[in-house]
Amino acid sequence: MSRKPVITRTETIARTRLFRIEQVGLRFANGCEVNYERLRSASSGAVLVVPMLDDSTVLLIREYAAGVERYELALPKGLIEEGESPFEAANREIMEEVGYGARKLTHLKSVTLAPGYFSHATHLVLAQELYPERRPGDEPEAIEVVPWSLDRLTELFEHEECTEARSIAALLLVRELLAGRR
Amino acid sequence: MSRKPVITRTETIARTRLFRIEQVGLRFANGCEVNYERLRSASSGAVLVVPMLDDSTVLLIREYAAGVERYELALPKGLIEEGESPFEAANREIMEEVGYGARKLTHLKSVTLAPGYFSHATHLVLAQELYPERRPGDEPEAIEVVPWSLDRLTELFEHEECTEARSIAALLLVRELLAGRR
Repeated sequence: MSRKPVITRTETIARTRLFRIEQVGLRFANGCEVNYERLRSASSGAVLVVPMLDDSTVLLIREYAAGVERYELALPKGLIEEGESPFEAANREIMEEVGYGARKLTHLKSVTLAPGYFSHATHLVLAQELYPERRPGDEPEAIEVVPWSLDRLTELFEHEECTEARSIAALLLVRELLAGRR
Repeated sequence: MSRKPVITRTETIARTRLFRIEQVGLRFANGCEVNYERLRSASSGAVLVVPMLDDSTVLLIREYAAGVERYELALPKGLIEEGESPFEAANREIMEEVGYGARKLTHLKSVTLAPGYFSHATHLVLAQELYPERRPGDEPEAIEVVPWSLDRLTELFEHEECTEARSIAALLLVRELLAGRR
């Protein structure tokens, strides 16, 4: 078990509206010194929600993803706003993106994207006992809601529009949880 | 099904050694115009490898992650270097990080981190029929190799050092594949 390296300095080397890039100096326990770059997020993290219409039907969304320049089929998600708890953010996001609220919310796991480079954390939340409630979101076009059976996840993962690792992990964790195998 | 938005302009607004941030102007099919920021990666993507010592034992690594300032327990991974195929990169990474090469490599799925903001793709690769071969890597300290049974994934996901969504997705996909359930 290694002793944690010491951060000898941090410096913001670029900043835009959404992103802040930091250079970090590190001294490892063995004396080795390195400089790394990392991305800092201003926010207190994100939620990614698995909204279950019933015990086998999840509500996916199909939305344009500017990073990859195509539509992506994934779970609803969004940043936690100031003053919100992760569960409040989860409920708001599904009201905005799929038109439902949830009476029952369960924290599945908090995950990272690429922990070597990003501090960003995403809380995976299972949403059950849904009821219709629509809140206006800030999307430039209407989001398509796609109901999908948990029995057909293999088919989903073969779909070229379903690539997001967080969504894949969350769906597999929920299927396992609902099958009572945990 | 929506018609894809048109990219009206792209502009690099910040650039560091590792990261390039772009501002993108988009016009959606409904006429709505927006500006997004996205992170471009210079590389041709990354590999994340699931090295199986036998049908139930995966070799994890425990490595310092500067983005979250703690050690992370995850799968070996790295960028694909120029001229390498994803399989060549996968084999090199496990030689450097766990001290094994693989006679059998299988592409599981190519995943994204956050497709709305990053173009980055990671190829998930199953590595089997391992043989000892160590190549020097560029890590500042020795990487700890942690053998883990696929029967104990629930325990792994409850571990505070195991948070990376890509690793969680890859491990669940491999367990499903090896259990013959796909």
